[in-house]
Amino acid sequence: MLKVGVVGATGYAGEEVIKILIRHKLVKITELSAIIDKEEPIASLIPAFKGKLDVICKKPDPEGMAKNVDLVFLGLPHKVSMGIAPSFLNAGKPVIDLSADYRLDQKVYEKWYGTAHKDVPNLAKAVYGLPELYLDEIKKAKLLANPGCYPTGVILGIAPALADKAVDPAGIISDSKSGATGAGRKADLGLIFCEVNENLRAYKVNEHQHKPEINKILSRVAGREIDIVFTPHLIPMNRGILSTIYLKLIKPMDTAAAVALYKKFYAGKPFVRVCDEGKLPQIRDVVGTNYCDIGLKATGSTLIVVSCVDNLVKGAAGQAVQNMNIMCGFSETEGLL
Amino acid sequence: MLKVGVVGATGYAGEEVIKILIRHKLVKITELSAIIDKEEPIASLIPAFKGKLDVICKKPDPEGMAKNVDLVFLGLPHKVSMGIAPSFLNAGKPVIDLSADYRLDQKVYEKWYGTAHKDVPNLAKAVYGLPELYLDEIKKAKLLANPGCYPTGVILGIAPALADKAVDPAGIISDSKSGATGAGRKADLGLIFCEVNENLRAYKVNEHQHKPEINKILSRVAGREIDIVFTPHLIPMNRGILSTIYLKLIKPMDTAAAVALYKKFYAGKPFVRVCDEGKLPQIRDVVGTNYCDIGLKATGSTLIVVSCVDNLVKGAAGQAVQNMNIMCGFSETEGLL
Amino acid sequence: MLKVGVVGATGYAGEEVIKILIRHKLVKITELSAIIDKEEPIASLIPAFKGKLDVICKKPDPEGMAKNVDLVFLGLPHKVSMGIAPSFLNAGKPVIDLSADYRLDQKVYEKWYGTAHKDVPNLAKAVYGLPELYLDEIKKAKLLANPGCYPTGVILGIAPALADKAVDPAGIISDSKSGATGAGRKADLGLIFCEVNENLRAYKVNEHQHKPEINKILSRVAGREIDIVFTPHLIPMNRGILSTIYLKLIKPMDTAAAVALYKKFYAGKPFVRVCDEGKLPQIRDVVGTNYCDIGLKATGSTLIVVSCVDNLVKGAAGQAVQNMNIMCGFSETEGLL
Amino acid sequence: MLKVGVVGATGYAGEEVIKILIRHKLVKITELSAIIDKEEPIASLIPAFKGKLDVICKKPDPEGMAKNVDLVFLGLPHKVSMGIAPSFLNAGKPVIDLSADYRLDQKVYEKWYGTAHKDVPNLAKAVYGLPELYLDEIKKAKLLANPGCYPTGVILGIAPALADKAVDPAGIISDSKSGATGAGRKADLGLIFCEVNENLRAYKVNEHQHKPEINKILSRVAGREIDIVFTPHLIPMNRGILSTIYLKLIKPMDTAAAVALYKKFYAGKPFVRVCDEGKLPQIRDVVGTNYCDIGLKATGSTLIVVSCVDNLVKGAAGQAVQNMNIMCGFSETEGLL
Repeated sequence: MLKVGVVGATGYAGEEVIKILIRHKLVKITELSAIIDKEEPIASLIPAFKGKLDVICKKPDPEGMAKNVDLVFLGLPHKVSMGIAPSFLNAGKPVIDLSADYRLDQKVYEKWYGTAHKDVPNLAKAVYGLPELYLDEIKKAKLLANPGCYPTGVILGIAPALADKAVDPAGIISDSKSGATGAGRKADLGLIFCEVNENLRAYKVNEHQHKPEINKILSRVAGREIDIVFTPHLIPMNRGILSTIYLKLIKPMDTAAAVALYKKFYAGKPFVRVCDEGKLPQIRDVVGTNYCDIGLKATGSTLIVVSCVDNLVKGAAGQAVQNMNIMCGFSETEGLL
Repeated sequence: MLKVGVVGATGYAGEEVIKILIRHKLVKITELSAIIDKEEPIASLIPAFKGKLDVICKKPDPEGMAKNVDLVFLGLPHKVSMGIAPSFLNAGKPVIDLSADYRLDQKVYEKWYGTAHKDVPNLAKAVYGLPELYLDEIKKAKLLANPGCYPTGVILGIAPALADKAVDPAGIISDSKSGATGAGRKADLGLIFCEVNENLRAYKVNEHQHKPEINKILSRVAGREIDIVFTPHLIPMNRGILSTIYLKLIKPMDTAAAVALYKKFYAGKPFVRVCDEGKLPQIRDVVGTNYCDIGLKATGSTLIVVSCVDNLVKGAAGQAVQNMNIMCGFSETEGLL
Repeated sequence: MLKVGVVGATGYAGEEVIKILIRHKLVKITELSAIIDKEEPIASLIPAFKGKLDVICKKPDPEGMAKNVDLVFLGLPHKVSMGIAPSFLNAGKPVIDLSADYRLDQKVYEKWYGTAHKDVPNLAKAVYGLPELYLDEIKKAKLLANPGCYPTGVILGIAPALADKAVDPAGIISDSKSGATGAGRKADLGLIFCEVNENLRAYKVNEHQHKPEINKILSRVAGREIDIVFTPHLIPMNRGILSTIYLKLIKPMDTAAAVALYKKFYAGKPFVRVCDEGKLPQIRDVVGTNYCDIGLKATGSTLIVVSCVDNLVKGAAGQAVQNMNIMCGFSETEGLL
Repeated sequence: MLKVGVVGATGYAGEEVIKILIRHKLVKITELSAIIDKEEPIASLIPAFKGKLDVICKKPDPEGMAKNVDLVFLGLPHKVSMGIAPSFLNAGKPVIDLSADYRLDQKVYEKWYGTAHKDVPNLAKAVYGLPELYLDEIKKAKLLANPGCYPTGVILGIAPALADKAVDPAGIISDSKSGATGAGRKADLGLIFCEVNENLRAYKVNEHQHKPEINKILSRVAGREIDIVFTPHLIPMNRGILSTIYLKLIKPMDTAAAVALYKKFYAGKPFVRVCDEGKLPQIRDVVGTNYCDIGLKATGSTLIVVSCVDNLVKGAAGQAVQNMNIMCGFSETEGLL
């Protein structure tokens, strides 16, 4: 049994990692920590774990925790992870980081997150954990940068067409809609129930910090610089991101051909489901699962792609466990079906 | 035109008072204040008022504001109002206070709100603003204690049966369900969207601070001490309180008789609608209105009463304007239909 | 007082028309009809009208109703209106039709709605009721085709840039998100609470029947054929449509210039509010109002426009009353502020 | 591997049974049926099963299905199950019926469901499947009447106090609040999104068909006739039932004593979690689980009990699988944790 720890156990992503690990047959949760007033059983902090998990949630002590784990998940806010990860890496323990701290190049990170990067040496070694694109690198990773929730669905929705050179790398638009857990569990006036419920708004239009992450990976796929137009929206629901993506076809292609292209690209990938022609995905079919569902519609010179993920599962915790499975040589789907 | 000010203009109750006053033909909003970073037009702070109201929202300055208003609404948190009201009262300007600061006797207030009362002299003069019970007192009020949201619906649901001595004053139960605006606009982890949405919970069971307010008024109605059982619940919707009330009949009575009793009690009261036998109220019919809708069902020795109000209108801002209308000799319904 | 009737009084649009007319000082509702089991007061069918409106809702009888109204609103499903409107027009009574039956040219209508048009003579005389574009025609209209909910927000969001020849008429994309009232009040399995709540989906991608309506009006504005890409989505909220529109700039323009262009275009139009640079609209600010709020962001060669309307007000009933005001020479805003 | 069939595979309860059985290690789903237009893979009908379950959903054919299953779940509407169950029972195949058809005595059933019972001989042999009360009977059951969603939470919330004779068997009140899946997946105008969302209502007050079921079981527990007051409410959320129960203490008891009593009663029962003193359950902690969480508060002579279940899991499909586990000698929790 792999001994696993979770730092940031009481955030939405941390809670979800724990929920999945409880079902995982090859790991044992040995350590949990969070910024809390007093150390107590995790089931006292998160009643849903009552009767399911009997582990004390401690205050943060990376060095101490590193001694009692074989691998650690960091479910921490951006800018915090890079101060914690080295403690585990120095002790030789693999790290799966769910924050953005190890996803971007130093300069881009510092521009978008407005702070100096504190762990440049490790940043260079981090592997971007999108298994459908980087399986081989992930197998060897010691520091895994788990993708952001928006980038997961957006990149998976664009990569096949882009890799096939079927669409124009310029002028890619992603209109993305996220449930409210995307913003994390924090007391923010803009996130209280009555401000989100019966409301809908675009935010950080083309200025969201996930944009450079999407650009970086798509540029790698295309072999040239890509700069997408990216508009995130906040939707009154708990979970899920649906991205409606508009691509300009440079190869003529009907919907059937597009579906065939995507099905071929994701053949053998257990967590991407491409809809048959005429069908489109919806959020309720992916909520609580590690699937990314993709639907396609070609119309004139436009290819419309609709991709759906659960932002806390395939967009965070599930993908993190998928990455752990790959890093540890387990079945890729263990604990995730 | 009556010159009116609103202190606490950016809270849910303050915003709602303004929304109603804009429609009111006999008043003019001359002053607004709130705890804000810089003074700016209210329409910049609350975009919904764009094109509808052109008044600067200032930082709090009760003495200054008192000079430019004929009457003031205080949409402030409990414990804050009693520090502000005297500035207006001393300047001879009537005050309608939407907080709990002037609703209870000093001792009870201090026990339930955990703080010394700062304005005992005015407390004695305050009138409880439930127009269906206290019309004559309200006409003469200079300091009006506007009822709490839960008490409004609960008291209106019980008063007719209690006044008629049809039900046992002991053993009254109110199971009340409130939308999330009831908690005010504040950044609280328990109020963020994902904690309230797809969730349901009882809270402060029989310990809610509105219980002594309900007890005080019902005791007055019954002419004897009353202590109800009161369970509030938080419902995933923005507005509305539905209270399901269980009363023990001491006079045998069928539903038709109960309906007749309630219709007679509220005859001529423009904002209470008693449902015909066989019909029950629902929240959507009162949202955005100043109505309290009441439905009745007698079954064996139990009289079940269902009452619905919009917590921000009849349970706060609407009733406050109703009280202003009465205090100023306007039509009771002006601005409210 | 203008005597007004509403056919289809119990649908969402009909109910909303009535709600607005109750507040209107220059009209009197004399006739209501709907497909119902037995004729009864409208307040029995829609309890929210209790105490506010005392009119019997009758079964459909256009000829009879025409005798007792000066003007009629048709809140009927598509394909039904065109069978009813002639009865009123023949009696010389102006008709404001909220369905799609008089919005398109005959051929386009028959293609998209899959049925022969039953009232071709009147179709030719119908005026498209978007007051911000067609004020003069509306003043003289006898048969008014009230715009669809999606087209209202989409057209208002695109017209200024298109009229200015600032953007490429080819390659316009509107990604639109609608609350569930957009689908009308009908018992459809796809519309029940648990299928819509905590869900999100695109539907009728580029095949929605509002697309030809948008194309027709934009083509008129541009003076050339336009064919947009249009993706509607169903959002778990009751009301509101937010459209995120992507336009290709052919005149270089920053956000400030775009805002200035839009403010100039809509100067003097009481129901369009253009946000200042750096601000974006949200649904809660327009819900329950007749406003269309528009925000802009220019980025590289893309102009992103976000427009918000309440689908039942500016997108249906409110705009219908605005049109009535113009047709009857009333103040354009009467009953709507 | 136990071969299992599900009749009514496309309803909410049927879908949930399948979802749980997929995770179950000791069973194999061999047969599915539903009233459908054409036979197709269940994953085409319910996209969430794509990649997880590859079984054809057939049209109803009980005799045919009986040959290929060892046990069957009936996820059918009331009045339908009793026409189907005999086909399986006659073939010697155990039946777990999720409808109400085998829960009540014949006379009571016929009164409350308004129809003659079609399968009286089997009705007499049916076992009521509440494992916390009837474990031994369930072990031997061939025809299991799975409890209703409301009765599960209400009975579990009352049984310990009643069995202990701590509370008055007269005057029990259950104020119950249910999410919208409780009404099943059916196209009903009262269940469409906009009628349920931002709304709240009581319905079938003291006349709900689950009342006689609760009365029957509580009477058995108390050893005397019981007739509770039962008020169900519809809450704008998908899943979950929270019942707030009011009991009159006849043994003086504080909250600590009540908690101790309940903990003792449910000791060793894996799916009931009694909250520590001072804590109360909430819906989000039980959604998606087979737990019934119970919180207690004694106040004066009233014992307030709050019980939470997921209506589709412990209130339907989960409990059905729990019963199957017991009937088949599997671990009671298999597939359910």
